[in-house]
Amino acid sequence: MDELMIGGVTLKSRLLLGTGKFARKQIIPDVIKSSETQVVTMAVRRVDLGAKEENILEYIHKDIVLLPNTSGARNTEEAVRIARLARAMGCGNWVKIEVISDNKYLLPDNHETIKATEILAKEGFVVLPYMSPDLMSAKRLVEAGAAAVMPLGAPIGTNRGIRTKELIQILIDEIDLPIIVDAGIGRPSEAAEAMEMGADAVLVNTAIATSNDPINMAKAFSLAVKAGRLAYLSKLGPEKEYAQASSPLTGFLNEGEI
Amino acid sequence: MDELMIGGVTLKSRLLLGTGKFARKQIIPDVIKSSETQVVTMAVRRVDLGAKEENILEYIHKDIVLLPNTSGARNTEEAVRIARLARAMGCGNWVKIEVISDNKYLLPDNHETIKATEILAKEGFVVLPYMSPDLMSAKRLVEAGAAAVMPLGAPIGTNRGIRTKELIQILIDEIDLPIIVDAGIGRPSEAAEAMEMGADAVLVNTAIATSNDPINMAKAFSLAVKAGRLAYLSKLGPEKEYAQASSPLTGFLNEGEI
Amino acid sequence: MDELMIGGVTLKSRLLLGTGKFARKQIIPDVIKSSETQVVTMAVRRVDLGAKEENILEYIHKDIVLLPNTSGARNTEEAVRIARLARAMGCGNWVKIEVISDNKYLLPDNHETIKATEILAKEGFVVLPYMSPDLMSAKRLVEAGAAAVMPLGAPIGTNRGIRTKELIQILIDEIDLPIIVDAGIGRPSEAAEAMEMGADAVLVNTAIATSNDPINMAKAFSLAVKAGRLAYLSKLGPEKEYAQASSPLTGFLNEGEI
Amino acid sequence: MDELMIGGVTLKSRLLLGTGKFARKQIIPDVIKSSETQVVTMAVRRVDLGAKEENILEYIHKDIVLLPNTSGARNTEEAVRIARLARAMGCGNWVKIEVISDNKYLLPDNHETIKATEILAKEGFVVLPYMSPDLMSAKRLVEAGAAAVMPLGAPIGTNRGIRTKELIQILIDEIDLPIIVDAGIGRPSEAAEAMEMGADAVLVNTAIATSNDPINMAKAFSLAVKAGRLAYLSKLGPEKEYAQASSPLTGFLNEGEI
Repeated sequence: MDELMIGGVTLKSRLLLGTGKFARKQIIPDVIKSSETQVVTMAVRRVDLGAKEENILEYIHKDIVLLPNTSGARNTEEAVRIARLARAMGCGNWVKIEVISDNKYLLPDNHETIKATEILAKEGFVVLPYMSPDLMSAKRLVEAGAAAVMPLGAPIGTNRGIRTKELIQILIDEIDLPIIVDAGIGRPSEAAEAMEMGADAVLVNTAIATSNDPINMAKAFSLAVKAGRLAYLSKLGPEKEYAQASSPLTGFLNEGEI
Repeated sequence: MDELMIGGVTLKSRLLLGTGKFARKQIIPDVIKSSETQVVTMAVRRVDLGAKEENILEYIHKDIVLLPNTSGARNTEEAVRIARLARAMGCGNWVKIEVISDNKYLLPDNHETIKATEILAKEGFVVLPYMSPDLMSAKRLVEAGAAAVMPLGAPIGTNRGIRTKELIQILIDEIDLPIIVDAGIGRPSEAAEAMEMGADAVLVNTAIATSNDPINMAKAFSLAVKAGRLAYLSKLGPEKEYAQASSPLTGFLNEGEI
Repeated sequence: MDELMIGGVTLKSRLLLGTGKFARKQIIPDVIKSSETQVVTMAVRRVDLGAKEENILEYIHKDIVLLPNTSGARNTEEAVRIARLARAMGCGNWVKIEVISDNKYLLPDNHETIKATEILAKEGFVVLPYMSPDLMSAKRLVEAGAAAVMPLGAPIGTNRGIRTKELIQILIDEIDLPIIVDAGIGRPSEAAEAMEMGADAVLVNTAIATSNDPINMAKAFSLAVKAGRLAYLSKLGPEKEYAQASSPLTGFLNEGEI
Repeated sequence: MDELMIGGVTLKSRLLLGTGKFARKQIIPDVIKSSETQVVTMAVRRVDLGAKEENILEYIHKDIVLLPNTSGARNTEEAVRIARLARAMGCGNWVKIEVISDNKYLLPDNHETIKATEILAKEGFVVLPYMSPDLMSAKRLVEAGAAAVMPLGAPIGTNRGIRTKELIQILIDEIDLPIIVDAGIGRPSEAAEAMEMGADAVLVNTAIATSNDPINMAKAFSLAVKAGRLAYLSKLGPEKEYAQASSPLTGFLNEGEI
């Protein structure tokens, strides 16, 4: 059976879900269900234990693997503190590292991310770093103990698709860790394409959360991820320059009278 | 419920299947099953009643709508003769018109196709013409009585994807008939994309038949078509130039000591 | 020397210019000069002999080949009448056929265009038909006596680039007439790309006329067309999947002490 | 006048030339001339003072700014040693940093490159680092004292074009240093496109060196770079979804009899 192993956990679903930007948090349980996801990420600051605001965890079934992220961290130190906080709060030992000091494109800082990954991996975290697609940085993340690598397809929330295909394909081909395309995926077809390229999983948030119908859009992504994965496993045929008749062209009507 | 109506028949599946190029015809029933298709096309010349060769119809369950095609026809007259022959042979009254005199790219001849459509529609056929995407030709096909319009994404059998997107989108927006993207689709992601654009269905043959695992590839296409359709119905969000944080970025760690 | 022969005229410049949409007609002579074009197209209705309005011809030097177009024609008959009118008005015997009945995309009607081409070519016109890129229609234009074929890259005035590349490349490869990419080209890089593909010329209007600086933009297109043509003649190298070092990588610093 | 200032030198040409891969070195002077370049890069190891082999410098006119590169360096230390060696050999104080330990894609190591830039900038070098396009790395190169930033469009020598457009556009918009697109550019149209995007210059080697006619291809790139720059300065018009008639469509033939 085709399964994905990350941090000792076996996953059947290759679609990871983000929880930001939903107009109504109440819809999240149904979105999770229709997406069939097994891993959900949330900003640690939104896990409000004091509970003046409602706690995002209330909307996530306990069978789901929590992937707290360090959104808001601008450097290694802050990312490490947020990760430890998340674990202390009972979110488990998975963490998605986001170190971002650029407010316009929200692009990750690979250098700080590598450092945070190294520290947290040594502390026993299952570390999934969000990164700018770059082979040498990915190799350093492997050495630093990452459990997967999460390159961006396009800036967060832009729905612009996999604009960094050239670089992500190289990561897929060269890095011996699961590659999870994160950020930028705006359409199910793009999620399918990532999977056809050989990505191990995709993470989607904005495209589902800001759709007119998040529950059905979550299902659409779930189907697309399965489609792309199946196609990858079944091997796509080559592109050809000239046409190839589906059946031989000659000699039908000419062979005799009809 | 979301259904597609063509020629008075209500279809749940929006994936049409071609039967050429399969290495072993014996696999066709399982491919049809895993594709969930309800409409299957085959060259009329391959419906061998005399049965020296095996008859392609033996592999197609009788619940499936047969869509005999006029592959091999080089002009209106030949297309019309083949269509009539198919009906006489008991293939029903659906016909996919293919009029092709170009052996290199197998590009359709819109002018002859329009004429054949008009003749056959008047004779009560449900006519689905394969065409080079062009708005004015599509308008003439509507007037000629076509039941759907089948523009090509790329030359037959090339797996090159939807290279004529610009023109197909215009057909989708302007033509009041089902638009079925036919030819060129080489990957499930491309089928999903056609559906996201608003196409009503896609026809796939080569990409499935020449895959390493046609049964699973058929399933991949089935999932992708559903994904794209669901996304279209749920409305995709807009592309944005700059990043949009999934959650507000400021004021987490700075608010107090942790 | 690399020259383009159309209708018995030898052209050094492979950039044709349209005259619509300029904010100030007075700028046209300088635009023509900086573009180095030798062929300029204008709507016949803008050639106002009665001269209540100013006459576009006043702005075009007499060394330039006039290419009156039948813009406004909705069918063969109207196109033929406009062409004859243009000749009677002294615009010469070149004509660009535009038959358009679609007001939203301004897409040409290939069927009517072929008929008009046939009539006018027989009357001694040098006929350059604007067309929707389609191999079989182009073949009929050849038979009808066209002097060149002008497929669209994208709808008129959209600046969307060569979205029909797949189909235009086929025309370039298969049709024994000059192929002039017309409509849609919005950037010099796109004009260069058309020429690299093997197009014989391009026609540009909107991209120049609506630029902030039409005179310099005309020069930019002129340079780009030359660049693309030179590249085509000098043959482009192949794309490769893996990197190719510009110089051998091994054994520099290691060979000894520096 | 539109000029580019790097390291205190004013450049009129925005095309930088690489000298690797030419089948015959004897052609290099003519290629330089037809390219109109003012900056030429060469691997330091190819500057053979001992002169068993011929010295690449013999082919470069002394008015040209030499840009020795550290090709062959696998880490900071090696890059620094090669740069110092180049200066000691009389190649001047410009240096293009290449730190590459990946033999398949020849992708640069941003981390080591930043360190080498910092050391060499402090020693008075004019440092142009070759880099994987990534905003945070580019910001660090600015801080490290780089004179320009050279992001890759695609792996060296692949002729694959600007596949990292999304990330390079961000560098152009956000980094206050000249952005020179290096590696991957395979066609003049792609060079023009980089310039239209707002890049300050491009560096080309393989596409010229491996062409059938390097002298004319060099000229083609020279023209294309000028075209793209002029278009950028003249501002491109917007893309539109629907067609825009070049001249008003109504009321020509209908106004009266002709």
